Amino acid sequence: MKEPRWKEAEFEEIEYEPTSIKELLVEMKNISELMVDLAYSAILFNNSDIAGEVKYLEVHIEKLNYQIRIMAMLAARTTEDAEKLSGILQMAEATKMISGAAGDMVKLLSVKLKHPLLPRILKESDEMIKKMVVGGDSAAVEKSLPELHVASETGVRIIALRRGNRWFYSPKDVALKKGDVMLGVGPEEGLEQLDKFLKGKVGVLE
Amino acid sequence: MKEPRWKEAEFEEIEYEPTSIKELLVEMKNISELMVDLAYSAILFNNSDIAGEVKYLEVHIEKLNYQIRIMAMLAARTTEDAEKLSGILQMAEATKMISGAAGDMVKLLSVKLKHPLLPRILKESDEMIKKMVVGGDSAAVEKSLPELHVASETGVRIIALRRGNRWFYSPKDVALKKGDVMLGVGPEEGLEQLDKFLKGKVGVLE
Repeated sequence: MKEPRWKEAEFEEIEYEPTSIKELLVEMKNISELMVDLAYSAILFNNSDIAGEVKYLEVHIEKLNYQIRIMAMLAARTTEDAEKLSGILQMAEATKMISGAAGDMVKLLSVKLKHPLLPRILKESDEMIKKMVVGGDSAAVEKSLPELHVASETGVRIIALRRGNRWFYSPKDVALKKGDVMLGVGPEEGLEQLDKFLKGKVGVLE
Repeated sequence: MKEPRWKEAEFEEIEYEPTSIKELLVEMKNISELMVDLAYSAILFNNSDIAGEVKYLEVHIEKLNYQIRIMAMLAARTTEDAEKLSGILQMAEATKMISGAAGDMVKLLSVKLKHPLLPRILKESDEMIKKMVVGGDSAAVEKSLPELHVASETGVRIIALRRGNRWFYSPKDVALKKGDVMLGVGPEEGLEQLDKFLKGKVGVLE
């Protein structure tokens, strides 16, 4: 049986390597904000795919936190350096707390319930969330989301885009590649339509 | 000495009373997301005003969590009801975890440091954050932010708007009132200009 993604992650290489303490910290901040967003989406839409992404990111944040500690210790030469760097490490710890809270939240989904967690709220919305992958044969490859008119053609908002281990926080500027993972929120029909297009089953998004 | 706002809050009436379990849960979700945003802003801009708002909201979330528990218990008539409502309470608990993590984060600011927590990151940005209050004599009263062209005239983004105990999550649709509190991010000059206008010291925003 294939291990779930967040277990694999502990042994994987990090594909995107932020190269400075500042970049690491900004990456940790962005990831933890994304995690809160995804954790609520996982629960509201009762979606274990999204919960898996959150668990994966929780491991990723731990790794970044380890890296930032190592870099900070190597960078400190004077007491003043160390004081400044200590602040950075505190911020990184705080980011880990947010990430931990988001991770704990999606654990609620592992409990097998007879009814979805929030059926009352779901009932009043016809939106769903869906994880989609860009296939090699899709006409979406090398195009950006605005070029494809994803929002106007399907009513779907792409809330996150992941390439390997790297998340993009402004997905609209990114030219899509084979294997890119997208999380979209929108009407079921629009999501199905977009999914087929991204898989290359239909050639035009309309 | 005046007690800080987050202490006062424990004894205050709640001005905005969500009237259903669903509304309460949506409010808790929105507040906790705002708290993460504000907590990072407080640390990045080394701003204890914003930290105070986060601490205040942490108390507010506790109150909403109490209310939702009471309402859930009163609403449950059958085992099936209770199961559904239990899910709602779990979600509310998770929201409290996020809120707690944001609250813990801003505690970092209470430690008196010789240097701001993140001087390196701050240096590369000329943006600041500022808390501003709408005065009774301001020409802003009864106008919305887009009507005032706040963004184009000052370069300031209003990240949050509070009226008494109620936060508005889409501040652009709101007609401003005396006493409204705004958190703006932007260049120092633009913030000063907006602050004067909101206080009624200048009559036109330009």
